[in-house]
Amino acid sequence: MLRLGHRPKRDMRVTTHVGLVARAFGASGMVIASVKDEAIIKRLKRVCEVWGRRDFMVMDGINPLDYIKSWKDSGGLVVHLTMYGLHIDDVIDTIRSLNKDILVIVGATKVPRVYYEISDYNVAVGHQPHSEVAALAVFLDRLYSGKELKLIYSDAKLYIEPSPREKRVIVRDQPR
Amino acid sequence: MLRLGHRPKRDMRVTTHVGLVARAFGASGMVIASVKDEAIIKRLKRVCEVWGRRDFMVMDGINPLDYIKSWKDSGGLVVHLTMYGLHIDDVIDTIRSLNKDILVIVGATKVPRVYYEISDYNVAVGHQPHSEVAALAVFLDRLYSGKELKLIYSDAKLYIEPSPREKRVIVRDQPR
Repeated sequence: MLRLGHRPKRDMRVTTHVGLVARAFGASGMVIASVKDEAIIKRLKRVCEVWGRRDFMVMDGINPLDYIKSWKDSGGLVVHLTMYGLHIDDVIDTIRSLNKDILVIVGATKVPRVYYEISDYNVAVGHQPHSEVAALAVFLDRLYSGKELKLIYSDAKLYIEPSPREKRVIVRDQPR
Repeated sequence: MLRLGHRPKRDMRVTTHVGLVARAFGASGMVIASVKDEAIIKRLKRVCEVWGRRDFMVMDGINPLDYIKSWKDSGGLVVHLTMYGLHIDDVIDTIRSLNKDILVIVGATKVPRVYYEISDYNVAVGHQPHSEVAALAVFLDRLYSGKELKLIYSDAKLYIEPSPREKRVIVRDQPR
């Protein structure tokens, strides 16, 4: 997942949510375009330490157009989430069936036109203004057909036992 | 939808996203517990003016426990979204089949124990830490079986025509 337009102070919480959704919904990492933000990297790494997925990749200060071009050159697919795109229901089966490594782009501020052009698919999670956090979650949920919400990671120190009214947090004996 | 634990400056953007998701994914309103935040009310009302759903209800400074109790007294169902709850896949069909008015509770900070007890269902959109914005979106998406993402509101001034690479915004002649 590639996060465009991040503004370190202003977007701190929303970009953290975007990163946590990427991790929890099965993406393999988050790349923050253009700017550095050590605070967010630390927060995400900390969650991965405790709840697993230490292989979740987080990078910042990356040139986004270079990154996208090299992604495409390696045979990957680029999907930009935007309310102006094609409806998710009309394209998700095609996107899944291509069976390619997918780079999902989510913007914070207004996304420059070049990203609409360079992306293989501009996909709308509905055509109403809402949230890139929600768009990413629903896109990944549809892509993985909901299976991602059952994941427990083998390197987690803690995991949750579902409960009707309690908070049951289990400490794993031997996280790998 | 009831938003707990909102801190006006710190959570401004995330609570706005939560409210926009509520509106876009078919909820009938957002109630901000305890505190007043005129800036968020204005933002959401502005989106409703332009993109429709002027009937979307936004209230702030509401006593949350009183609100929940009167909701239950009127025969409504209370669902609290939390990573500690029962997995969404295990309860969503039951919740839908009850066919009651649902109050969805989403927290910002740590949610006090009383809300776990007073809720009819504590529901986990996966058992990983992520985002209340994502949890609300996926819960509503599953509840409405994805139909909510096709909505265009009859009182919208603008709507989007899906496009593979363009931004096509249509101005309605006569918004109702």
